Amino acid sequence: MRPDAASPLLTDLYQLTMLQTYFDQGMNETAAFEFFVRKLPAGRNFLVAAGLEQALDFLEALRFSTEELDWLAGCGRFGRRFVDALADLRFTGTVEAMAEGTVFFPDEPILRVVAPLREAQLAETRLINLLQFETLAASKAARVRLAAGDRLLVDFGLRRAHGAEAGLLSARASYLAGFDGSSNVLAGMRWGIPLYGTMAHSYIQAHDSELAAFEHFARSQPQATTLLIDTYDTEAAAAALLPLARRLAAEGSPVQAVRLDSGDLGEHARKVRAILDAGGAAGVRIFASGNLDEYAVARLVAEGAPIDGFGVGTRMNTSADAPYLDCAYKLQEYAGVARRKRSEGKATWPGRKQVFRRLDAAGRLAGDTLTLETDTAPGVPLLQSVMRAGRRLAPAPPLAAVRDHARRQLAALPDDLRRLDAAPPYAVEVAAPLRELARQVDARRH
Amino acid sequence: MRPDAASPLLTDLYQLTMLQTYFDQGMNETAAFEFFVRKLPAGRNFLVAAGLEQALDFLEALRFSTEELDWLAGCGRFGRRFVDALADLRFTGTVEAMAEGTVFFPDEPILRVVAPLREAQLAETRLINLLQFETLAASKAARVRLAAGDRLLVDFGLRRAHGAEAGLLSARASYLAGFDGSSNVLAGMRWGIPLYGTMAHSYIQAHDSELAAFEHFARSQPQATTLLIDTYDTEAAAAALLPLARRLAAEGSPVQAVRLDSGDLGEHARKVRAILDAGGAAGVRIFASGNLDEYAVARLVAEGAPIDGFGVGTRMNTSADAPYLDCAYKLQEYAGVARRKRSEGKATWPGRKQVFRRLDAAGRLAGDTLTLETDTAPGVPLLQSVMRAGRRLAPAPPLAAVRDHARRQLAALPDDLRRLDAAPPYAVEVAAPLRELARQVDARRH
Repeated sequence: MRPDAASPLLTDLYQLTMLQTYFDQGMNETAAFEFFVRKLPAGRNFLVAAGLEQALDFLEALRFSTEELDWLAGCGRFGRRFVDALADLRFTGTVEAMAEGTVFFPDEPILRVVAPLREAQLAETRLINLLQFETLAASKAARVRLAAGDRLLVDFGLRRAHGAEAGLLSARASYLAGFDGSSNVLAGMRWGIPLYGTMAHSYIQAHDSELAAFEHFARSQPQATTLLIDTYDTEAAAAALLPLARRLAAEGSPVQAVRLDSGDLGEHARKVRAILDAGGAAGVRIFASGNLDEYAVARLVAEGAPIDGFGVGTRMNTSADAPYLDCAYKLQEYAGVARRKRSEGKATWPGRKQVFRRLDAAGRLAGDTLTLETDTAPGVPLLQSVMRAGRRLAPAPPLAAVRDHARRQLAALPDDLRRLDAAPPYAVEVAAPLRELARQVDARRH
Repeated sequence: MRPDAASPLLTDLYQLTMLQTYFDQGMNETAAFEFFVRKLPAGRNFLVAAGLEQALDFLEALRFSTEELDWLAGCGRFGRRFVDALADLRFTGTVEAMAEGTVFFPDEPILRVVAPLREAQLAETRLINLLQFETLAASKAARVRLAAGDRLLVDFGLRRAHGAEAGLLSARASYLAGFDGSSNVLAGMRWGIPLYGTMAHSYIQAHDSELAAFEHFARSQPQATTLLIDTYDTEAAAAALLPLARRLAAEGSPVQAVRLDSGDLGEHARKVRAILDAGGAAGVRIFASGNLDEYAVARLVAEGAPIDGFGVGTRMNTSADAPYLDCAYKLQEYAGVARRKRSEGKATWPGRKQVFRRLDAAGRLAGDTLTLETDTAPGVPLLQSVMRAGRRLAPAPPLAAVRDHARRQLAALPDDLRRLDAAPPYAVEVAAPLRELARQVDARRH
């Protein structure tokens, strides 16, 4: 059986009932859908686009298996002719998108699908599922990176991520957005993400002696020895490990770091730093973890805590203060006619759109223009063709290149937007031609 | 390539570096680990156990593929002899657990693994990943069920769940905890969960006429016609569909429901109900969706909104007000000796434990006792053997049976615990033998 994530049945029922209706009505003209975020979560100043590569993988592989078709035919909701037609369904459309790692703002599409209506509609659920989560995780991770400066940042969140795919994709998204690596071994194997790890409290507890546990680990992992010192008494452990640290250093395999995982991390770090420095272990770094997020990291950095690196898990991977985005994948055009939803509080800008971004003399973001694809505006267009006739136009860029792009994007943020609390909104101007199209669409009757 | 979720490399690096050390030291005595929640999220009064079946599936299938072993051997961190030994690793241990759907409280283990140290340690990351998320989703869904009374409840959250597996597992967890069904087609195929769906705004927009869109859908889905009426003007659409509704009713395929998805849902529901009733469509039910959770549902129910069913998505699937649990999988015993972590604020109860639950004369929960497995206490023991020598003792119960169990558990909640805000904590007594063991463990030196 193939992985769940590859099944087109990983979708909302209404996609299939709508498709049956479109099939019965012979409706399959070209549709343009765009994915965008309606508004920023509270306290956020920008988002970081992510998930495009997984979205394109999904579109390239979209097809129903025999088992799935048989199930649909037997479930009592769909006609045989329709199910037979699904057997031939492939994604044959075009995709324009912002590059992964690009900073973006509300109402700006980060992906547009232009395809026969049924293909474009069927893709909705999974495209949202991928783009919203990876963007959510990348955007949260970018804030942690801004808070941490150039200190080491490692994703520790697999265990409390929401299932297997969330663990994998948030490892990828956080690396893309500036983390240095992850504890997630499969993410390392899959994408070459650098792996980091220490030891669990259970490891210390399984030994009768904490010091024996430290030495055993150092013997087995001489190239990456980080010792967890808070299982019983943090400062006592720091003092107790000094003779071992000196011995290992003399043997050429020095202890690299100690990890703190509980209590007041800043206070423990200061005491442990003093103990290590006084004991001839100034080269041993301090790594901290436990309930961290951008706010906690910023506080520790601000108070000058001597911490060299952070393991950030749960609150980053779940984007705990904003665990979802107010986002949508909306029909903007069908059969050559622009469309717009007008539901209260949910009206959208119609038509196929482009985002132009201006930079100031220092290379910082200076304002975006949202306008029609056929219009122009000052600055650089952010949406680029990435797929045509259902095939990628180029291989997926290496994740390292995506990460470099994200780093440059974060470096180009104006100071205001780098703050962890809400700044005045970044200027996204809606151009006159787009406003005029919206007026025309509203004037049509339904 | 096999699904990501089945890979033992979907784990934290430290599990493997610890295993290498255990291998080098010849440490593989019997270990007992327990999974429990340290404290309830703010405003919560209970949790609902879920994820056991996926956890057991994982343990039964645990093994490394040749590709994974080759990667491990080549990554520079592990010795060849150790990697060769991993090829033979299977889970051979025992599992005791609370049945899925059981209500539980902080410090109460819902699952215990007793196995050779390396097997029990390696399983940690994925066991937490499954148990915490499914329990999180089931616990949130149970609150929505308590708020909704016996109104129809449908999971609509796949698109904003955190990836594919979160969408699937939250469909399962919400059904288990009392939802009536899901929009998630793959969850329907996999577990027989009843499927519900309506239509998207894009479907209405793709038509030039809203009324034509309604009629086309009714023709294609006569057995399940729910019409989305808020794309342009909710009340106007309700009035406009009356002739169609009468015609379809006369033909024997009546419109089943209309869906509201924006604005003040209670206010729209009252107006639409009046329009439908006055127009001879009293049999058409009203279904509401859009940013719902237990609080919104409770408000709509309290104000007497004429809503027959709710689609609840994002905030349930992401458990938005509490997107993670303070939970752990902790070593409680190794090589016959009880163990305990004492890190600040994170001390745990040592040893293998059992939870006994007392009921009052009306069958309501009247107090739990947390004690040693070898001890007894008044009431019924909640942890039962489910796996021995790495094999399930019985096939997984049908999901419908699990759902029945959860329904009875929710019905047995005291009134206080049924509230959506924080009630005085439920009584979980820590018995004297367990307190004495903790004292003895603390008296040992490390």
